[in-house]
Amino acid sequence: MRPNISPSLLASLMLATSPASCLALTLDNARLTVAIDDASGALTVTEKSSGRTWGPDPWEGAAGILEADAGPASRSWNISRSGAVRVEAIGALGARIRFSNGTGEAGGPPWSLSMDVAIAPDEARLILRLAEWARADGLGQAKLFYPRHAFALKTDAERGAAVLPYWQGAIIPSYIFPMNGGRFCMWDDAQHERGAVGELRYYGWDGLVMPWFGTHDDKAAAMAVVPRDGSVGLQWVANYNSYHEVARRQHRRTTLPRILALTPVWHLPDARPGTEMSYFFLPGSDHVGMAKRYRQIARDSGLLVTLKEKAEANPDVEKLRGAIYTGIYGGYPHYLNMPGMAFDFEDLEAIIRNMHENQNVTRAIIHAWGTFENYPPNPWPISEALGGPVSLRRVVTRAKSYGWLFSSYHSFVSLLDHDPKYDIGLAPKDDQGRPALGMRWKAVDETRWAELARATLPREIEAIGQNADITDIAFTGRVGDGGRRLADYLASTGLVLGTERGNEWLVPQYHMFEGMVAPYRETPLARYSHPAPLFNLVYHDAVANFGKIQDPNHLASNLSGDYYVKTLRAMLHGDGPMVFISPYEYEGIKPYLRFAAEFLCPIHESIAFEEMTAHAYLSEDALVQRSRFANGVEILVNLGPTPWKSPIDGELPGYGFRVKKTDGSALAGRFRHSAKIDSRDWDF
Amino acid sequence: MRPNISPSLLASLMLATSPASCLALTLDNARLTVAIDDASGALTVTEKSSGRTWGPDPWEGAAGILEADAGPASRSWNISRSGAVRVEAIGALGARIRFSNGTGEAGGPPWSLSMDVAIAPDEARLILRLAEWARADGLGQAKLFYPRHAFALKTDAERGAAVLPYWQGAIIPSYIFPMNGGRFCMWDDAQHERGAVGELRYYGWDGLVMPWFGTHDDKAAAMAVVPRDGSVGLQWVANYNSYHEVARRQHRRTTLPRILALTPVWHLPDARPGTEMSYFFLPGSDHVGMAKRYRQIARDSGLLVTLKEKAEANPDVEKLRGAIYTGIYGGYPHYLNMPGMAFDFEDLEAIIRNMHENQNVTRAIIHAWGTFENYPPNPWPISEALGGPVSLRRVVTRAKSYGWLFSSYHSFVSLLDHDPKYDIGLAPKDDQGRPALGMRWKAVDETRWAELARATLPREIEAIGQNADITDIAFTGRVGDGGRRLADYLASTGLVLGTERGNEWLVPQYHMFEGMVAPYRETPLARYSHPAPLFNLVYHDAVANFGKIQDPNHLASNLSGDYYVKTLRAMLHGDGPMVFISPYEYEGIKPYLRFAAEFLCPIHESIAFEEMTAHAYLSEDALVQRSRFANGVEILVNLGPTPWKSPIDGELPGYGFRVKKTDGSALAGRFRHSAKIDSRDWDF
Repeated sequence: MRPNISPSLLASLMLATSPASCLALTLDNARLTVAIDDASGALTVTEKSSGRTWGPDPWEGAAGILEADAGPASRSWNISRSGAVRVEAIGALGARIRFSNGTGEAGGPPWSLSMDVAIAPDEARLILRLAEWARADGLGQAKLFYPRHAFALKTDAERGAAVLPYWQGAIIPSYIFPMNGGRFCMWDDAQHERGAVGELRYYGWDGLVMPWFGTHDDKAAAMAVVPRDGSVGLQWVANYNSYHEVARRQHRRTTLPRILALTPVWHLPDARPGTEMSYFFLPGSDHVGMAKRYRQIARDSGLLVTLKEKAEANPDVEKLRGAIYTGIYGGYPHYLNMPGMAFDFEDLEAIIRNMHENQNVTRAIIHAWGTFENYPPNPWPISEALGGPVSLRRVVTRAKSYGWLFSSYHSFVSLLDHDPKYDIGLAPKDDQGRPALGMRWKAVDETRWAELARATLPREIEAIGQNADITDIAFTGRVGDGGRRLADYLASTGLVLGTERGNEWLVPQYHMFEGMVAPYRETPLARYSHPAPLFNLVYHDAVANFGKIQDPNHLASNLSGDYYVKTLRAMLHGDGPMVFISPYEYEGIKPYLRFAAEFLCPIHESIAFEEMTAHAYLSEDALVQRSRFANGVEILVNLGPTPWKSPIDGELPGYGFRVKKTDGSALAGRFRHSAKIDSRDWDF
Repeated sequence: MRPNISPSLLASLMLATSPASCLALTLDNARLTVAIDDASGALTVTEKSSGRTWGPDPWEGAAGILEADAGPASRSWNISRSGAVRVEAIGALGARIRFSNGTGEAGGPPWSLSMDVAIAPDEARLILRLAEWARADGLGQAKLFYPRHAFALKTDAERGAAVLPYWQGAIIPSYIFPMNGGRFCMWDDAQHERGAVGELRYYGWDGLVMPWFGTHDDKAAAMAVVPRDGSVGLQWVANYNSYHEVARRQHRRTTLPRILALTPVWHLPDARPGTEMSYFFLPGSDHVGMAKRYRQIARDSGLLVTLKEKAEANPDVEKLRGAIYTGIYGGYPHYLNMPGMAFDFEDLEAIIRNMHENQNVTRAIIHAWGTFENYPPNPWPISEALGGPVSLRRVVTRAKSYGWLFSSYHSFVSLLDHDPKYDIGLAPKDDQGRPALGMRWKAVDETRWAELARATLPREIEAIGQNADITDIAFTGRVGDGGRRLADYLASTGLVLGTERGNEWLVPQYHMFEGMVAPYRETPLARYSHPAPLFNLVYHDAVANFGKIQDPNHLASNLSGDYYVKTLRAMLHGDGPMVFISPYEYEGIKPYLRFAAEFLCPIHESIAFEEMTAHAYLSEDALVQRSRFANGVEILVNLGPTPWKSPIDGELPGYGFRVKKTDGSALAGRFRHSAKIDSRDWDF
């Protein structure tokens, strides 16, 4: 199933109306007023039920900024000042605003652009459409930041947040608040450096995972929904005042206010005339309200296919409920039979058996990294050195007999330069017909992906009878038709499907994602934001999420926090438990597996197929959070060491939690560090 | 005390000898043979007692690579092929090698350079000196990578490591080895990307903290010692094969071998003719041997002044032994009186009192962030709103009565743009006399630093009588005379001195560094290296080290690992315990303080002033490590969850440790995670 292309609401509103010239213009319906400044073309918007009014760009009053390549350098224009601005009404609810370069201050080659602006007749929705973009030959690729800094918040003066579906999701508060001093130093500093400004597009490895973003304060939220083709991206300004740019260019201290702002970025010419986006205004709403409004859009687009629906088509999908995602890494796909890391199939069977018989694991997804004789993109044949297909079939049969899922590791898109069978013929070609070699993991021409999967996967299924498929890498970034054909082929196998990181377009076909969690590498954005379960608020009941293999839940290797923090966050977000180990680590991970099996799995089992209905930050430092699921389960966690108390919720110790179950009963507990030294014990 | 400038050994060796032309040349002493290839000028070196021979650059056999700005682009030459190479003997132990551009393959503007090469008469030491550098007008700044990839190891074929004094120190192994699968994925991938190559210079915030680096295998080590002026830096190649560069330029798979190589980078013209560096060849040695050889050099240079010597001059220095570095962050210097974060002096006194009376803390360094009415660089007067100087004096008196150290937070080098008293006149000027504004924390003209400190610090000492000074930021990067004058002034106060991160030149004057630990932000180097206590192997008995405030020991916020890992690593490295908290976190941190006071402080007390004599990685994954100190203390730790056992050392559980004390007795223990949920307990 594919998302539908929604027809242009704006086009239908404007149909058969003719432009009429005017000097000032206000669009108005029962919910919204949009005033268009006749001099600048900038917008002032009021959401009526909350009474919230947002003025134009707090820095320059600019309707937008246009940046374009102009020869070796790039040029930039404030489109409100680069030439005359013309505003024309189009019907009662729309207008066309024309901007150009010519008579204004900045000079440079001529260009002109028009934006159509309209409001929906019966909804607090503002629609923006690029109507015209014309440029001189001297101008190359361009970016239009429009409407610039719309719905921005003044730092510390206006209390709210920016909401970005980056990885699982993030929010940036517009104000300072108490937190650990060390973290505060990094957080505040990062908002005073150039990394306070950044851009993202939908989608890609490190992009937006859903095509929306927004800001809110206590009164109302303004949420942008942009096209799924990635033509309109996002720029954020995280409580920044352009200090460095002003200092460098003007040798003085900035006088601009610090703002928290999200600006749509129209990538010209990817964004062609006709490209359209909308703002939805949601009184009294926050990140949850935005996600829920977007969930309606996702449903209307055909993206929201639930796990319950998927389980009707494939009963094996039920096995995801309460399963521990268990990655067992034998050095593959990096190396074959790596000394000290590779497992043989007897080792693998012993681990699976021990998990079941000794650690009380009742549900698991076994992901076995390293079962083949060849490197990707040719995962075949089953390795004889590790035990051969008959032996591996026995492993799979055992896993299935426990009611578990099993997949070997697959990539059909990689070329490793140390592979003795390296085939440069699989690389895509550049415009001169030469091999275009990039990153080793995603190196095969996309047109060949499905064919490579078809060449080996059916043979593997026949040999070992696995019931799941985890195909990595292919879907971490942006793909075209080749990627979609690979997904279609994999879906045709009837296996339970999982993949690395995941992307929204896979939701209708896929059952589990590995790593739709907090970003696991440091970025400025990760330094000054709170993780937020935005993807799960939209899709929790549609795809099961587990931790990122590079940042497994049982280790503290990254920004996402330690053992406890990752475990508590997984509970809060409704993600399944996960471990990712090399075989020699198995002994050390047994106690965590037993804990996960006995405590975490039953919680996940109860909510795995449920909608996440609510999420809130309860403490000022945002470390105490609560989520709710459609069947009534509530999960309250404290992600930090500081005890917390509230009149309503009572006391929660450091690293404590409370889970309200479907039957209304609750369980409460806490994690603790301890040291046992000779005859003494400490808990801390 | 300042490091002495050592006289040029090479110059004295060559004195009064005259060049003689020859076609091939070998330098030889009892320890070393250096063969100079007459065609390429490349070196082949044999250390005789180990029999280890290192050939030239495994990629191209190049003596060196010269990169220079040539107009808008930069040019690069293999100096062995760009023109005729001439090798002339200079005495029995030296030679001059002339390289030039002219008759060779690469074209471009002419240049010529000569390197003098000599071996010491009675030592396994190779001395390299830039003798001549002449360039055409068209060439700008240049970098000479020389000797290129010298003493490199072939990845996986030769087993050893590269040793880099980056932050506390790091080693990069030349081979794959078992580790956590998730970590392995990041590690191996980072060595196949462009971040596998990088450069560092001595010194700066993110540079080398000591002017040396080297490689070793099981047979011998080759250690480079470069000048302290930073003119010769370091390039590393971390098990890389130039895959991306070859793929992009030549549209084929690389055929170069993966290598682990460290190349000195001569920054021309910072490295002027006469600039000299040495290689020391250490049979059977590793990172410890290199550090210890450098310790001799540091002692000879006057840098190694021990804490015992410092304590004789200032008995308060004794208070560092076994002290918990306790940073209490009230929002300053970022903000004044920040709601929810600022402490008043009664709060501060209550915390100190509780630490002493209820958490059994016997030694501490209290670092109080936020005691002034003004922002840096004017930390004065003591805040009346927080309680005034009489009240703060009471706090200091209490801390001193416990035998503790106390410093308010100081910076004399910052300009905050939101400071109502912002004085742009304090910024340095550019060559046109305009304010040169950079990063806010280090924004004051260096010539003003000491004067700003003198303007306020004596008044503070008079008002509250503190016994320590922690002045941040100033010394994190490279400084000139202004920075040295500030350090001299601070040293003149007689206070116990500490600073952020620290640098080698401060060692003679300073008593504690905050953050000479594993790097706390993610870099490619951090992803594929093991932390190594290189700085401590040289200077442990000269300066007390504590954790980085942005990555405090009691929280898992970064790459350095969680609670347990950071605590175990601090024990192993002989660093003191530390916490960095906002006041509202105090309640949650009490149990850790008690644990630190009762367990960690006595260990630190026993070794704080001792030389670290040994360090070793015992397990294949490098998570089990042991250190030794001059008084016989041995510390064995397991930084991971996997149990370990060896025939010699017996068994060590996950997160376990054993400490052998000075009296020969031992204590053993382990850290454990636990969950207490209703009536059930899990340990894991």
